[in-house]
Amino acid sequence: MSSHAPSIGFQGEIGAYSEEAVVGYFGPAVELRPMPTFRAVCAAVEAGPLAAGVIPTENSLAGSVGEALDALGESELIVVGELLLPVRHRLLGRVGADLAGIRRVASHPQALAQCEAYLASHGWQLVPAEDTAGAARALSEADDLTLAVIASARAAERYGLVILADDLAAADNLTRFAIVVRPGSTAPPADGPLAPPADAPRSTLVIFETKHRPGALHAALGAFADAGVNLTRIESRPTRRASWEYRFLVQLDGDAATEPARAALADLGQRAHAVRLLGSFPSPDAARR
Amino acid sequence: MSSHAPSIGFQGEIGAYSEEAVVGYFGPAVELRPMPTFRAVCAAVEAGPLAAGVIPTENSLAGSVGEALDALGESELIVVGELLLPVRHRLLGRVGADLAGIRRVASHPQALAQCEAYLASHGWQLVPAEDTAGAARALSEADDLTLAVIASARAAERYGLVILADDLAAADNLTRFAIVVRPGSTAPPADGPLAPPADAPRSTLVIFETKHRPGALHAALGAFADAGVNLTRIESRPTRRASWEYRFLVQLDGDAATEPARAALADLGQRAHAVRLLGSFPSPDAARR
Repeated sequence: MSSHAPSIGFQGEIGAYSEEAVVGYFGPAVELRPMPTFRAVCAAVEAGPLAAGVIPTENSLAGSVGEALDALGESELIVVGELLLPVRHRLLGRVGADLAGIRRVASHPQALAQCEAYLASHGWQLVPAEDTAGAARALSEADDLTLAVIASARAAERYGLVILADDLAAADNLTRFAIVVRPGSTAPPADGPLAPPADAPRSTLVIFETKHRPGALHAALGAFADAGVNLTRIESRPTRRASWEYRFLVQLDGDAATEPARAALADLGQRAHAVRLLGSFPSPDAARR
Repeated sequence: MSSHAPSIGFQGEIGAYSEEAVVGYFGPAVELRPMPTFRAVCAAVEAGPLAAGVIPTENSLAGSVGEALDALGESELIVVGELLLPVRHRLLGRVGADLAGIRRVASHPQALAQCEAYLASHGWQLVPAEDTAGAARALSEADDLTLAVIASARAAERYGLVILADDLAAADNLTRFAIVVRPGSTAPPADGPLAPPADAPRSTLVIFETKHRPGALHAALGAFADAGVNLTRIESRPTRRASWEYRFLVQLDGDAATEPARAALADLGQRAHAVRLLGSFPSPDAARR
């Protein structure tokens, strides 16, 4: 047994929403490992230096995070947990800045999209950035009272910025994160306040592909319908092997080892190909329904 | 009859790939109207100043363009055509720049994602930008030999940049664009080299929602399977009304006015709700299959 804190990878810089997700799931006793891309997170978890990775898979307003799903789908990682992070966007500026003087707003494109209505009402110029915390850091190093960023209160604190406006996005802005580990490895304990209870209803993620012919997707989904299994999500992503060929990611109620999900997944193996079970875990949705 | 050139809206700046799509579909005798966002394009087509809009809906490598699908789904526009634009990414630098001196690469996040393998092999810092042509323009105004951008040859020409590397992305990089107009209006003639022939096989786009219960999506897709209609694409997008409720966009072979698609769509009306037929048009895929 090792006594040192487990290393957890996430995309972005210190102060990113993903950092809140890491601490929200695992608690504060972890070593935070910011990485530049989702692929870098997945590669470092596969190769061993990291005990786990925490990657966003969808947002309730902006939809799926395509690059994260691709990195996960093309890795050999399994999903051992999920959490829902309430995202509360703040408009941050330098000390001395005020709303009337702002001309440009920088942030990650997903954050800009989530605050679209608020931003449109002000007519500010939008500046995409690699991540919210990185935009906050860059502003802290720039001498510009006309630039604001959209980021977390955590980022404001960390980079010495002031909050010019709060609650920029719609009320129910949640980002779903997946906890990924190497197959066969055990995840560090889920000690954070946002980890679902261990006895919460289970949810399962699976990826598959279908033939390009009439009814192929319908036939595949029939595996779940016939077994009475509820799908809570379906996403399509290009396979990148040939144009307009897709890989599907499906999330369903239940555990892969328990009926009726077990039978549905066995049946799916007959109806689709390249089926890969990502994992079953306590659902963070159950508490919110 | 008006004798002046029709105004066509697209997202981005002059020199953007979307501009190539406009000219590829309509030919050069149009008035190009660059707009800041997909919503701005849709709003200007709805309100009347523009005869049509051209918006990207998916890319063969990076997947669907969520913000464009949302803008289209929330508008009242109809789709009267599609084209496939081959996307050939170049690495552009200032006159005097060379590959060995490059440290940072700026472009639209989708372009950065499409060139991921090439960029990762060089270890450059990636800088997201609002669009490829805007990044090229910004570079043309900056005195920086360590910065490169990913954009089109058209952008290189327009902004006086040199091509440092060519064919950065995988071979079969295609972006699908939809031609949108007001309901009841007629689109300008499709005179460009990338417009599919008028007698090409037809394709249809439809949007719908389903109830959140076991088998609901399967039941809806049964409308197509039962009628023997091939689905070529399915996308899910958050409705933004409630968390984890989705709107589905489906593309199918055939014309909405012709069997078997007509019967399948009538059936869909019984199995799903908020069904909205976006339109039927000559498919640009047929020539490529």
